[in-house]
Amino acid sequence: MHFIESLNKRYASKQMNGKKVSPEKVTTILESIRLAPTSLGLQPFKVLVVESQELKDKIFEKAAQGQPQIPNSSQVLVFACYKSITTEILDEYTQRIVTQRPTLPLAKVTAYRQMIDKSLNRPDKENFNWAARQAYIALGFALTAAAVEQVDSVPIEGYNPAALDELLGLEDKNLGSVCMMAIGYRDEATDYNATLPKVRKNKTELFDFL
Amino acid sequence: MHFIESLNKRYASKQMNGKKVSPEKVTTILESIRLAPTSLGLQPFKVLVVESQELKDKIFEKAAQGQPQIPNSSQVLVFACYKSITTEILDEYTQRIVTQRPTLPLAKVTAYRQMIDKSLNRPDKENFNWAARQAYIALGFALTAAAVEQVDSVPIEGYNPAALDELLGLEDKNLGSVCMMAIGYRDEATDYNATLPKVRKNKTELFDFL
Repeated sequence: MHFIESLNKRYASKQMNGKKVSPEKVTTILESIRLAPTSLGLQPFKVLVVESQELKDKIFEKAAQGQPQIPNSSQVLVFACYKSITTEILDEYTQRIVTQRPTLPLAKVTAYRQMIDKSLNRPDKENFNWAARQAYIALGFALTAAAVEQVDSVPIEGYNPAALDELLGLEDKNLGSVCMMAIGYRDEATDYNATLPKVRKNKTELFDFL
Repeated sequence: MHFIESLNKRYASKQMNGKKVSPEKVTTILESIRLAPTSLGLQPFKVLVVESQELKDKIFEKAAQGQPQIPNSSQVLVFACYKSITTEILDEYTQRIVTQRPTLPLAKVTAYRQMIDKSLNRPDKENFNWAARQAYIALGFALTAAAVEQVDSVPIEGYNPAALDELLGLEDKNLGSVCMMAIGYRDEATDYNATLPKVRKNKTELFDFL
C-alpha cells in the first residue's frame, strides 16, 4: 500500500477488539520510535510498553476512564520524559556517542557535550516541555509505523497524568508521562470513529507557499 | 524499501547540494503533515513552505547561521503554532466538522465544541506549548514521509525564533514558529553527518515492558 494511502486509512480507534498485534509488528513500531530523531540526539524519554491485562485495566480505571479502547488494546505505549536532565543522563549519552561513533575525535565529543550542557542550562520545567516535543516526534514515527503495518492505533492525551504517573511509579524514576498510544485492532461493531470521514484543513488553509 | 530500512537510512543532513525535490515528492511530504492526527483534531498550526531562494538565504543569515544546509535545501518548512487559540479559529474548526462529517448530528458537534472550549480555557502560553506538541507529531509524519520518498531532510530547532518570526511576519498572523524542517539532497562531499553511524539508545535502555 502506498504510504499516503496508509495514512489516509489510519484513524483514532475508539474501541478495540482484544486481538493481539504480532510480535513482528510490535517490533517494527518500537523500532520506529528508537530510530526517531531528537534534538541534540538525546532521546530524553523512555517508552513503557504495557502488555499486562491487569495493568491496562488499572490504567483505564484509575487514569483514563474516557478511553474505552485501552482495556481491549494489544499494547499501551506510555511516553515518559525525564523530569530533570541529570549529569548522569548526559554522561551516559556522551558515552554512547563515543561507543557508537568510535572514529569521532574525543575533542569533538567533549565540545559537543559542553554545547549540550549550555543548551540545557535552564529550568527543569522548560527542559521537560522540550523533551515532550521530542517524544511527540517519536509518537509521530510510531503512528506512521502502525499505519504502514495496518495496525490500528490511537494517540491519547485525555488522561490524568498525575494518576498515571503514580500508578506506574514514574516520579521515583525521574519520569513524567506526556502521552499514551494504544495499538491493536478496531472493534467494527462499536467503534463509531471507524467509518467517519477525516476532518482536516485543506491545503490552502494549512500551507502558505513563500 | 521496507519502512524500517528507510528510517535507518534517514539522518540529519547538514549540507545539501541545491537539487530540487520533485513536486510529487513535496506533495507527499505535505500531505503526510495534513493527515497527521492532532489532539481534539484541531491542527493548531500552519506550515510555511519556503521555496524562494532569497528567503531561504535570509532565514540562514538572520535567524539560523548555525544551519548551513538551509540555503542549499530545496524547501524549508516552518511549523508555526497559534499564539492564541481564538474564537474565530474554533468557529472555523466547528464549521469544518459540520461540513466534512455531514451525517454527524449537530447536537454532538455542539457538545464537542463545548468540551473543546473547556479544555482550552487556560493561559495562551499553555495552549501554545500544547499546540507545539501537535506540530511535532506532524513533523514526525513529514520526516517519515521524506524517508519513504528517499528525500534527505533535517529537523531544525537550533535557530532564533524571534528573528525568524519577525522575518516572516508571523506575530501579525497570530503565529509563532516552533521548528523548521529542511528537505533536499545531501552534498556527499561536505556533509560530515552522511557517513556517521546513528547514535541511539538500545532497546533495553529505551523500553520497559510491563
